Amino acid sequence: MGNWNEERIRALSRLYRDYGQGKIDEDIKDLLEMINSLDRYYTTSSCSGRIQIAEVKYPWRKTEYVILGKWHRPVAIDEVLKCIKRGRRNVWLNVEPPIIHVVAKDLNAARDMLVLVRQSGFKHSGIQGLREGRILIEVLSTDKMEIPLIFGGQLLFKEEQLETIVCLANVLLTHGKEKLARLREALRLKIGHTSFS
Amino acid sequence: MGNWNEERIRALSRLYRDYGQGKIDEDIKDLLEMINSLDRYYTTSSCSGRIQIAEVKYPWRKTEYVILGKWHRPVAIDEVLKCIKRGRRNVWLNVEPPIIHVVAKDLNAARDMLVLVRQSGFKHSGIQGLREGRILIEVLSTDKMEIPLIFGGQLLFKEEQLETIVCLANVLLTHGKEKLARLREALRLKIGHTSFS
Repeated sequence: MGNWNEERIRALSRLYRDYGQGKIDEDIKDLLEMINSLDRYYTTSSCSGRIQIAEVKYPWRKTEYVILGKWHRPVAIDEVLKCIKRGRRNVWLNVEPPIIHVVAKDLNAARDMLVLVRQSGFKHSGIQGLREGRILIEVLSTDKMEIPLIFGGQLLFKEEQLETIVCLANVLLTHGKEKLARLREALRLKIGHTSFS
Repeated sequence: MGNWNEERIRALSRLYRDYGQGKIDEDIKDLLEMINSLDRYYTTSSCSGRIQIAEVKYPWRKTEYVILGKWHRPVAIDEVLKCIKRGRRNVWLNVEPPIIHVVAKDLNAARDMLVLVRQSGFKHSGIQGLREGRILIEVLSTDKMEIPLIFGGQLLFKEEQLETIVCLANVLLTHGKEKLARLREALRLKIGHTSFS
């Protein structure tokens, strides 16, 4: 278990360095702290969900992706408009759901975490890697929006309706944050139960 | 291992019944047959990817979802238009990526399949359930489109641009099918290697 302890300490050091540099989203801090307070787990990366505007022809081709704007909070229409204006031929608006990578010490720990996150609404969570002493869980839901705003230099939507689109993006972002809160509450109830921690 | 054999036979019987009733997508048949030819695995459900039009206010609330049209192949703009006209206040267009649920006999089998599917581009695949003799893998990517076309009775997009939106949906659908082909090819190369089958 030497490796486990070393890798855990390394991951937590990185996390606390990122905290200090303001790189960790406020919305997810509490939850990460709770998970990392448990000896059987540590987190390696996370995002509390975001709204993003990008210059890209097809967003599924990640290589040609240029981010024009990114927010981990609801956005105002003016912020979005400013970004769109900086776009060239192809601009997409995207809402990404929360995602967390958690390393579990053993299969029992992984199983407990999987049950908990799936019950909290992260239905597409799963174990992605199975190395002894390092079982990697991706906590994931797939509620996202992916909308072409400009394609081939043409604005696709009616300008007066952009406000509705931005409003829907904000509603979905908030929905993701609520799911995080649900997971935080489920975890809080579990902590203290020796079988979990 | 009695349970394993029984559950495997039951799952395959259901699959072959669905084949007979035309319920399985042509695009995914070969791949399912290949997976199910291996003693260590069986599939329980699958979708080769689809384009969908639905009447729903917020698509992440699955309970209020009414499907107006669904295709596992590229669509023509007329088909989409016909569906939109049947919509009422809120209509969304959605492209879902392929998804397959595979049961593996043990952790080694699960690990081998996970590596293979992730290498083939299904980066969000993971083990969702860990029961002895029944390890459930979800084969998943998250490349999707989710676009509000009508909201609150208002058309959000310029009518003349709907063709571009439908075209983009077709490109993404095809991208998913290509990923399935890549997985089929990777599996074909593996089969015959005794360490895999």
